[in-house]
Amino acid sequence: MGDADLARLAHELRRETIEVVSRTGGHLGSSLGVVELTVAIHAVFDTPRDKLIWDVGHQCYPHKILTGRRDRMSTLRQGGGVSGFTKRSESEYDPFGAAHSSTSISAALGFAVGRDMGMPVGDTIAVIGDGAITAGMAYEAMNHAGHLGKRLFVILNDNDMSIAPPVGALSKYLNEIAAKGPLALFKAAAEEFESHLPGPMRDGARRARQLVTGMPGGGTLFEELGFSYVGPIDGHDMGQVLATLRAARARATGPVLIHAVTVKGKGFAPAENSADKYHGVSKFDPLTGEQAKAKSNAPAYTSVFGTALTEEAARDPRVVAITAAMPSGTGLDIMARRFAARVFDVGIAEQHGVTMAAAMAASGLRPVCAIYSTFLQRGYDQIVHDVALQGLPVRFAIDRAGLVGQDGATHAGAFDIGFLANLPGFTVMAAGDEADLVHMVATAIAHDEGPIAFRYPRGEGMGVDLPARGVPLEIGKGRVMKVGSDAAILSYGAHLAEALAAAELLEAEGISVTVADARFAKPLDTGLIDLLIEDHPALITLETGATGGFGALVLHHLANSGGLEKGRAIRTMTLPDRFIDQGSPAEMYAWAGLTAKDIAVRVKQALGRGAARPGLRVV
Amino acid sequence: MGDADLARLAHELRRETIEVVSRTGGHLGSSLGVVELTVAIHAVFDTPRDKLIWDVGHQCYPHKILTGRRDRMSTLRQGGGVSGFTKRSESEYDPFGAAHSSTSISAALGFAVGRDMGMPVGDTIAVIGDGAITAGMAYEAMNHAGHLGKRLFVILNDNDMSIAPPVGALSKYLNEIAAKGPLALFKAAAEEFESHLPGPMRDGARRARQLVTGMPGGGTLFEELGFSYVGPIDGHDMGQVLATLRAARARATGPVLIHAVTVKGKGFAPAENSADKYHGVSKFDPLTGEQAKAKSNAPAYTSVFGTALTEEAARDPRVVAITAAMPSGTGLDIMARRFAARVFDVGIAEQHGVTMAAAMAASGLRPVCAIYSTFLQRGYDQIVHDVALQGLPVRFAIDRAGLVGQDGATHAGAFDIGFLANLPGFTVMAAGDEADLVHMVATAIAHDEGPIAFRYPRGEGMGVDLPARGVPLEIGKGRVMKVGSDAAILSYGAHLAEALAAAELLEAEGISVTVADARFAKPLDTGLIDLLIEDHPALITLETGATGGFGALVLHHLANSGGLEKGRAIRTMTLPDRFIDQGSPAEMYAWAGLTAKDIAVRVKQALGRGAARPGLRVV
Repeated sequence: MGDADLARLAHELRRETIEVVSRTGGHLGSSLGVVELTVAIHAVFDTPRDKLIWDVGHQCYPHKILTGRRDRMSTLRQGGGVSGFTKRSESEYDPFGAAHSSTSISAALGFAVGRDMGMPVGDTIAVIGDGAITAGMAYEAMNHAGHLGKRLFVILNDNDMSIAPPVGALSKYLNEIAAKGPLALFKAAAEEFESHLPGPMRDGARRARQLVTGMPGGGTLFEELGFSYVGPIDGHDMGQVLATLRAARARATGPVLIHAVTVKGKGFAPAENSADKYHGVSKFDPLTGEQAKAKSNAPAYTSVFGTALTEEAARDPRVVAITAAMPSGTGLDIMARRFAARVFDVGIAEQHGVTMAAAMAASGLRPVCAIYSTFLQRGYDQIVHDVALQGLPVRFAIDRAGLVGQDGATHAGAFDIGFLANLPGFTVMAAGDEADLVHMVATAIAHDEGPIAFRYPRGEGMGVDLPARGVPLEIGKGRVMKVGSDAAILSYGAHLAEALAAAELLEAEGISVTVADARFAKPLDTGLIDLLIEDHPALITLETGATGGFGALVLHHLANSGGLEKGRAIRTMTLPDRFIDQGSPAEMYAWAGLTAKDIAVRVKQALGRGAARPGLRVV
Repeated sequence: MGDADLARLAHELRRETIEVVSRTGGHLGSSLGVVELTVAIHAVFDTPRDKLIWDVGHQCYPHKILTGRRDRMSTLRQGGGVSGFTKRSESEYDPFGAAHSSTSISAALGFAVGRDMGMPVGDTIAVIGDGAITAGMAYEAMNHAGHLGKRLFVILNDNDMSIAPPVGALSKYLNEIAAKGPLALFKAAAEEFESHLPGPMRDGARRARQLVTGMPGGGTLFEELGFSYVGPIDGHDMGQVLATLRAARARATGPVLIHAVTVKGKGFAPAENSADKYHGVSKFDPLTGEQAKAKSNAPAYTSVFGTALTEEAARDPRVVAITAAMPSGTGLDIMARRFAARVFDVGIAEQHGVTMAAAMAASGLRPVCAIYSTFLQRGYDQIVHDVALQGLPVRFAIDRAGLVGQDGATHAGAFDIGFLANLPGFTVMAAGDEADLVHMVATAIAHDEGPIAFRYPRGEGMGVDLPARGVPLEIGKGRVMKVGSDAAILSYGAHLAEALAAAELLEAEGISVTVADARFAKPLDTGLIDLLIEDHPALITLETGATGGFGALVLHHLANSGGLEKGRAIRTMTLPDRFIDQGSPAEMYAWAGLTAKDIAVRVKQALGRGAARPGLRVV
């Protein structure tokens, strides 16, 4: 294809992307911002031998359309359909999947090492946004790539926007470079400027200029890290993009950073004009951009949390909140509207955010770290080393606990119960419903004795009445919801509704069931557990998390207190020992074997009344 | 004190530091490098109201001597004694403890936020090495500090040496700045140079120049991140250090980075002249520097691993290894001596290292990530998201599993069993002795089906014969060491020796015990477990890790297969639910309740023959 054909292809690809997402919903804005880059990279590089790695991966819809998945795009983000992210198992054109941010440069470097050791790999290209590049691991990767000096290409997709506007000094710095206008930076005084630069910068500038003839380079942070820097270029000008990529591909010997300025939502006016650039949209009208509204029966856990925290903040000036680039996703935007100076967006920097919160607690503040379960994994060592070991009262508000729907396996909040509740000194809660979430916010704020966490799921609550004000719960005490005699279900977290529904199903069959809400995975309500074991022939623990969490701690307790010697039938219901692909939350929990019906079946199996063998779905 | 008195104090402090460490062993080189900085910071700043945070904290001996712990320094790093790191519980002069690297800037920023919100905090000062500042979280913190613009001080202690020489482009960059000589950088052409710098750099240079009159500043990476940069200064010239700190304290309005060039081991010739600058030493002769040699009965696990891996690398060119700044601590230096190009030191960058290894595996290589258990926590999200979710065959060699001795609680390898074995698709092993470690290296290299990990402890092996060559183990199969009838001990990992010793103690009392080595926490040897439960009235699981790991998975299995309905007495022996301070490994395991005698007592308790209640020490 000639360059004009490629420009036409980009035009069609943009149109098709809009149409696809108007029918499925998804990450529209990011995908529209990289249409020209997508076409140009595939035109200039030899994928799939050359390894193209999209950071985060949610901007990959045009890439998927171009690489054999066009006819399946109507299944985007649906059960059994095309993933909303890049995924190795889906296509050889996705050499390294993603969903969490800032992994692409490390991956590109790993492939480059493989190539230089004889593996079947050509060039490696990472495309990373200006938000994602602020994370520590992207910096670690650049520092290492600059050190090794291996040929690889990093395309900085600078749209001055991640999910929210990016924060941090680097973002300001990039803006200042980009503000000079594509290709204009240093242009006039390039020669004179270079002669005044100190050594390392001057060499960098020379390398960049040699790389793309006639294109002036400058001394940038990237060059200080050992990269050749090219740009900024206009990421929507196909001519500029193609020329730059071709020159870079032809001449690069070491790592190259190509700085492309793009517009999130490019080419679709409603997206370009909206505040969030249509980062994630539901189905919409492709003409007007109007999005379908989901019917909502009850307030979402996220907004219940945000509102409850704001109330606590109004009463206590020591309450501060920390988010890692997700002010709206976490509900902290609600608090920020009243107390902007007490909400800290640290950028995509969970490691830093957790440790900063620990020091805030040491200074006497009452910090609340609001981080999704899956992203909290990024701050795990800081939770162990800076929070738990020092016993500092950081409050962790853990949204998106359990399975999360269309974002699929990469976003599941599966491991937090275990990785927190097995740390000494931690108090670990899960909300059985949205009213209890309000109480848990109050419990956490009031708890100055050590670290404390509470988890809650994505989506709507149960529709229960919300208390006018949260009241701190007694630490380590659960609640009994319903008393029966044949079996007991001890639920931890928001699957309490499924436990109660299972009890109803069982009652209809004449099986009488006690249902309790543990509230705490740590400290355990051992008194309650001992009573349940004493009074029931069967006990089922229930949690929307992996093994090694709540059920495991119940079993540890029963083992070491002699409770297992009663020979009761005990079953642990957890997420299964496999990753669950995207679908609706209901579908995903059905695949996971965690519906009300599954619970009822498990109770009957434990009681010896079931047909199937127990233990089919759980480790 | 006048400046001359302070210089004299520094001289005496250096002498005393050498003397203390000659009697206790410890981190000598780092402490000697910061003697003048320590004196000057305490002279210029108002600690403990001003918060002084030592990154890593192992350079804090002079600080401890000056802040009320002088008479206890003879107990350094010993059981019940002074910690080898800064520690909040030890002194108000340690406002934020450390041991893992690169947390100090986040902590300093957290305290600065607290101060600006009315908490009782003055200035905040982070002292961080040139190795530690390369980690992603230090960059995240600088990026955020530059964004917030709060007054805080970062002192870059640049000795061109962490434990090993630091790697990465930043390190090279710092060397290039420092090579110009203290205070000389840009001096001649400062004015002319500034006028040619682009905006953000020029402003930074101006700020720095304003900060310290007469001291020229330059456009550096730090200024691009929003810091004022001062330096480089000679960190051993008390006059320069005092003048710089006083000027900075008097005039700073935002974040300031003071670049101090120091010499690791300064003032003690044997340290300055040794390759590792006496990073960590045993007791030594203060005149000659000659170190006491520990008597060794068996090869250390670390060198057994390094040698076995080197053998595998010799047979298979696809074997590559990754370390995060610990080539010698991990034993990878053994492989590097033969295959230097196949050992990758990524710097203090576990996040990047793990993801790079995942891509190396995707390219067809057989990567081995050798990272201590405690530091692997830094790469947890990358293990979940890039390795486990994609099922990529990265091999994790996990040294320092369990309690580690003088480095204390911060370095304990307590959580890896749980945080790995609860991930879908992972194979997780622990070596019962050093011969099995050789086989596990072979097992891991041969295993291309998915991620695999093996853990082993710090220190000497059991002294068993080593196999000439490792033979891959059957995945998911344990081994029976000894057959008895009254009780079974199922051991996971290197406490196998204690399990066997416990069996001997019990035999002497007429109790016959089966001892099995599980080898695998995942997949579990369920056949073996079922046999043990079938044939013994009591089963004790044993692991040198926290709850939620091996024992938990055994219990999950028994619950869901109906095995608990037999009513056997089961006990799980794990690390207790508290952090264990430093001591000798034997002391620490005694405090943890994990000696052979403790195991024997637990067996008797399970059998109903013990005096004390069971479950006293375990959750």
